[in-house]
Amino acid sequence: MLSRSIKYRYNYKPISSNFSRLISSSRVTENSQKFPLNPCINEILTNPPSPNTKIQVSGWIKASRISKNVAFIDIVDGTTHQDVKCIVRPPSLLPETLNTGSSIEVSGVWSEGKGKQKFEVQVTSENEGKVDVLGEIEELYPLQKKNHSIQFLRTIPQYRWRTESLASILRFRSQVETNLVNFFNKHSFIKTHPPIVTASDCEGAGEMFRIESNSMLSNKKEEEKFFGKEAFLTVSTQLHLEVLCAALNRVWTLTPCFRAEESDTNRHLSEFWMLEAEIAFTNSLTEITKFAELMIKSTVEMLVENKNNEGSNLIDTVDKSIKDQMTSRWEMLLSKENWDSITYTEAIEILQKNVQDGKVKFTYSPVWGDSLKSEHEKWLAGEYFKGPVFVTDYPLEEKAFYMKINEDKKTVACFDLLVPDIGELIGGSLREHDLQKLTNEMIRRGMDPKPLEWYLDLRRNGSMPHGGFGMGFERLLLYLSHGENIKDVIPFPRNVNNCIC
Amino acid sequence: MLSRSIKYRYNYKPISSNFSRLISSSRVTENSQKFPLNPCINEILTNPPSPNTKIQVSGWIKASRISKNVAFIDIVDGTTHQDVKCIVRPPSLLPETLNTGSSIEVSGVWSEGKGKQKFEVQVTSENEGKVDVLGEIEELYPLQKKNHSIQFLRTIPQYRWRTESLASILRFRSQVETNLVNFFNKHSFIKTHPPIVTASDCEGAGEMFRIESNSMLSNKKEEEKFFGKEAFLTVSTQLHLEVLCAALNRVWTLTPCFRAEESDTNRHLSEFWMLEAEIAFTNSLTEITKFAELMIKSTVEMLVENKNNEGSNLIDTVDKSIKDQMTSRWEMLLSKENWDSITYTEAIEILQKNVQDGKVKFTYSPVWGDSLKSEHEKWLAGEYFKGPVFVTDYPLEEKAFYMKINEDKKTVACFDLLVPDIGELIGGSLREHDLQKLTNEMIRRGMDPKPLEWYLDLRRNGSMPHGGFGMGFERLLLYLSHGENIKDVIPFPRNVNNCIC
Repeated sequence: MLSRSIKYRYNYKPISSNFSRLISSSRVTENSQKFPLNPCINEILTNPPSPNTKIQVSGWIKASRISKNVAFIDIVDGTTHQDVKCIVRPPSLLPETLNTGSSIEVSGVWSEGKGKQKFEVQVTSENEGKVDVLGEIEELYPLQKKNHSIQFLRTIPQYRWRTESLASILRFRSQVETNLVNFFNKHSFIKTHPPIVTASDCEGAGEMFRIESNSMLSNKKEEEKFFGKEAFLTVSTQLHLEVLCAALNRVWTLTPCFRAEESDTNRHLSEFWMLEAEIAFTNSLTEITKFAELMIKSTVEMLVENKNNEGSNLIDTVDKSIKDQMTSRWEMLLSKENWDSITYTEAIEILQKNVQDGKVKFTYSPVWGDSLKSEHEKWLAGEYFKGPVFVTDYPLEEKAFYMKINEDKKTVACFDLLVPDIGELIGGSLREHDLQKLTNEMIRRGMDPKPLEWYLDLRRNGSMPHGGFGMGFERLLLYLSHGENIKDVIPFPRNVNNCIC
Repeated sequence: MLSRSIKYRYNYKPISSNFSRLISSSRVTENSQKFPLNPCINEILTNPPSPNTKIQVSGWIKASRISKNVAFIDIVDGTTHQDVKCIVRPPSLLPETLNTGSSIEVSGVWSEGKGKQKFEVQVTSENEGKVDVLGEIEELYPLQKKNHSIQFLRTIPQYRWRTESLASILRFRSQVETNLVNFFNKHSFIKTHPPIVTASDCEGAGEMFRIESNSMLSNKKEEEKFFGKEAFLTVSTQLHLEVLCAALNRVWTLTPCFRAEESDTNRHLSEFWMLEAEIAFTNSLTEITKFAELMIKSTVEMLVENKNNEGSNLIDTVDKSIKDQMTSRWEMLLSKENWDSITYTEAIEILQKNVQDGKVKFTYSPVWGDSLKSEHEKWLAGEYFKGPVFVTDYPLEEKAFYMKINEDKKTVACFDLLVPDIGELIGGSLREHDLQKLTNEMIRRGMDPKPLEWYLDLRRNGSMPHGGFGMGFERLLLYLSHGENIKDVIPFPRNVNNCIC
């Protein structure tokens, strides 16, 4: 902070006398103001105090071993996967019971370690060391036993994030989001917040949640609507994002989206976070796919390079087999200079040829005009291309009304990014920016343009070629962490009949 | 990126052979891969090309002047408040009509400017310059005329963000969020995503939105619930955030929250973004208030210091009178070493004394035990303290069940941060972490503990003292931008009878 302050004093052009006073007074805060919280374990290990300093460490007991003359306690606090080792001598300094999972506060002296660890906390009678239990555990606390299955952990959402590997996933999630913020900032994108409550059905799929004020429902005033009309939870913020794109050019968002799908798979959530980006002044689908490719590559690159090593932290906390798979996945994403790209028509040809040649069997025959099924997507990315592949130019009838129709009049300028294990990770397109063409297509589809007049207005005034994409944030996390179920990369998954806590 | 790569080569400890290969191959992407999008105006002005380079600039016409021999066009594209000036010679190179708000693409030569501006685009027949209209405007396009009232602009949400001052607000919003991300990352906080759909009513206020699958409602299967039970939109993610706090220690979130309040004021939204933070291993309310103070100060400090000057950009695009108010507000926030802090009891005494002394009149008399009314809050912060003031230790009966009860048994360890013009900006507390005390309080209030067993579980196992706060993100933006209505700092405001587009 100090170096930044010094820097600006030479670079910064004050814009008013008030503002320049403001700037010269602004160096007071973080330097002169003591950070009010006690150091957490991540801070202690990142900037260790000098040896022989008195220290207090709070956290949960990860493991303990007690012998006659000495006791060892490993403490974690969730801010890092690393623990702090405490050496208690004599063990009589310990409270009567000491269980894995209890929360404790240890007072001792920060010391250079003798074994593998560089530092440890010495808790002795000489240095007035002590161990206080802040919160005990009950006999039935499930996390005392190790190696619970991930399926079992899903049944205890109030506890499961206390496990080492799942806590890593949430730290990883936070880091991936930060990397995306940095990536978009670097490239002049504005982070925006389109609405969650909407009267429009962006995808026309109909699988939406309807919302109403609880008190109006309870009073049975069913004819009255809180918002003056039927209101729904958004399935995609794209239409609203286009409004902001037509004002700010490069916009993105990371927003909860909702789909009332009654299917319950390992890749679907009823509530999920969607990253959407919209870019003005482009009429090239390749620019959009290349940009999406760069976004993921940059995110992975920052994971690998970042100072806190959240990437390697995550890898450190998973099983050897997953570790290797994750590592080779990241390597593959970064090393492939250009990800593969084929058209939908080529994809169908590849699928049909390989079925004919007996190289693969599908439940659904691949037929031009039908949507690609999940089994087709996974095979294309996982088996055929063995990596991410863009599939472009899908049939008009399979896609939404707003996509730009290609010259063949049969396909649209759109893409899906398919990745191994997951299938569709990103979907995007150029948007039709010609008012007449867009209105014609809506009418051809039997849509009423009235409720979307505001969207058509974007084409009436100052319209510009543009395009964008949406990516399920949890799908990205699932893919990058080589997880098996999307329910394990979001804190509280919501699905049909699933709203545990 | 390059310097970071070089740096890590000396600092980075590879954790497996695969991972070290990954790292050595990771320097390929952003350096070798051309950024796929054409430069936007922010990029052009931040890293100007060399003079005499051919250039294409796309954007919307901000202003144009055409004389006999030369025409001037100023283009904006929303990525910055600055424009690019184009000099067109001869004016016959222009298309027939050229209106403010039309979107255009200009080809010309980047040149050193002769007037105030450092650079300009020379569009001449010699350099094959041209001006293409991408999107015209209609005769009735409202933004042709300048100086529309902000009230009128609210009626055209599809267009209003194209105005200079409102576009500034959205760029500012994006910058404030980035600053908060940086602040929390710096202090080892994990950004988390608690659920939007919930079966719990955190505040007990009852003003919630109920949600149900549209298809179930349409099929009149009213007895069946999509989630297997009644589900609502969250009013505060705090209870779920406490689950994550009990796993990761320092957690925060920025999440949409929803209140079905039928009042429509300049400070309320039915859908708003709430920043919530939760901190483990603290039993000091002062630590929480000091932390909240530091969060806001750091955010403002980064605004003042940041390279892209989003702070000064915002200030540059507003009226002189607002500019001065905003500047002195930021100055005051940073320069006051410790913000004022009083107890609720002291606040009531101050209010009562000033009423008695005839210094102020209120609609509602200040009485110990009642909630502070908005008029009281605004007077305390705006008139009495002339700045932010923490009010702590409110009466037990006025606050939620989970707050730690003080020794007097009449008040709880909580705070509100009051600021001028807005009133309450932040509300926070220590949370009761003792199972017995918490259960007793729930029973005393007539609450059924059953639906919150998962929340009580946090106190059954590994419980720790903790606390946190929530801050309406739009209120912070409103306060920092010295705006008059919260509807102008969120792209698509939602209120009772208000869901325009």
